[in-house]
Amino acid sequence: MHKLVLIRHGQSQWNLENRFSGWADVDITEQGAAEAREAGELLTQAGYHFDVAHTSVLKRAVRTLWHVQDAMDLMWIPVRTDWRLNERHYGALTGLNKAETAAKYGEDQVKVWRRSYDIPPPALERSANPSLRDPRYAALDPTLIPDTECLKDTVARVMPYWDEVLAPAIRSGQRVLLVAHGNSIRALVKYLDGISDDDIVELNIPNGVPLVYEFDDNLKPQRHYYLGDADAIAAKMAAVANQGKAK
Amino acid sequence: MHKLVLIRHGQSQWNLENRFSGWADVDITEQGAAEAREAGELLTQAGYHFDVAHTSVLKRAVRTLWHVQDAMDLMWIPVRTDWRLNERHYGALTGLNKAETAAKYGEDQVKVWRRSYDIPPPALERSANPSLRDPRYAALDPTLIPDTECLKDTVARVMPYWDEVLAPAIRSGQRVLLVAHGNSIRALVKYLDGISDDDIVELNIPNGVPLVYEFDDNLKPQRHYYLGDADAIAAKMAAVANQGKAK
Repeated sequence: MHKLVLIRHGQSQWNLENRFSGWADVDITEQGAAEAREAGELLTQAGYHFDVAHTSVLKRAVRTLWHVQDAMDLMWIPVRTDWRLNERHYGALTGLNKAETAAKYGEDQVKVWRRSYDIPPPALERSANPSLRDPRYAALDPTLIPDTECLKDTVARVMPYWDEVLAPAIRSGQRVLLVAHGNSIRALVKYLDGISDDDIVELNIPNGVPLVYEFDDNLKPQRHYYLGDADAIAAKMAAVANQGKAK
Repeated sequence: MHKLVLIRHGQSQWNLENRFSGWADVDITEQGAAEAREAGELLTQAGYHFDVAHTSVLKRAVRTLWHVQDAMDLMWIPVRTDWRLNERHYGALTGLNKAETAAKYGEDQVKVWRRSYDIPPPALERSANPSLRDPRYAALDPTLIPDTECLKDTVARVMPYWDEVLAPAIRSGQRVLLVAHGNSIRALVKYLDGISDDDIVELNIPNGVPLVYEFDDNLKPQRHYYLGDADAIAAKMAAVANQGKAK
């Protein structure tokens, strides 16, 4: 049986402040670090071991992975970072407070921007897009750097990483850990579980909780489950869902 | 002009306790973490940027690299870990206090074990070698796992990594950071500077200080220098040299 473990980064400073993060390189909080270490301890207690880890080029994901590696005594395993695992780009909403944005534009509009499958938030001005001057994207074809993304756009960059990198590794027997973001994980989960464009709106990924997928030999998902306390996880998922309320 | 930056890990717990570390997976101290962050800050102030980093599979090197990456805002760059960059294997001396060992066997004997080019310390019993049961070496041909090493043995595993990995990367224009250990760095420096088997005995590498090599297009070293305060670096190098004294 093949497995893949997905972890959304621990609480970030902008999660705490309820701001849209997207590609802004926000770090994790002390709580986020504790969530990450707890995820590593849960995985160790459950007997997990990883041969390789993958993460985005954003530090809230990398640092979460470092805490997990540290807690699992796996600081030595190979790690691959890739922009295609980044959070969905939030366009001109990047940095704005979610509740304030809901008060201004309405909760329904914010839910559309946060969760609709194919309607992106308003775009950044191209010339004002800081990613165009960021060394971590310097080797990329600039046409790949978005000014905003809907989840469908995120799916379009995450899926090649699944097809070309993750799926072959899992199929070859490697035990793979993926530490990423709410929407890059939603993109992958939508594909793995065949979730419809409408139903994906209601799926929320909690911070810092290991999500295990079990596959058959053809990488068809057999089941999936979170590790940890079910009530605490449900509360975290509800909190993510409620971030777009005007209060 | 091509450059390579070498950093020995920051102070480890066994550096502090003056014990032989070798392949034991000892972590860095608070002082070691501060040294690592300072190295990253020095590099940033001097305008350095790296495209890739290489380190060993031992956590004192990995964590030092993490601190450097963090201080340089380079958590996203690719990192490659390889056992060939490990510290020299200290055989049956692993874990022993250097001063106590000098008091027991004499300072001259300890200097031979610490610094002679081709005389290894007493070997571990093969069946008692913990590396044979360590997952980080599980994919290796077991005949590659040493029970002890002299510097010549370390050179024999470091040089293929230089020839096959580091030199091609530097030649291709990549800006390479290497975070390793006192003796894996001495092995590389011996080769780069053509230091004789006798003279290498007197070379000591300070913890947590960037050592810059500049090369011509054929990777012939043109000059090398440490970044940072010269007096503090000299004091650190003398401290390393004096660790084998009986007190």
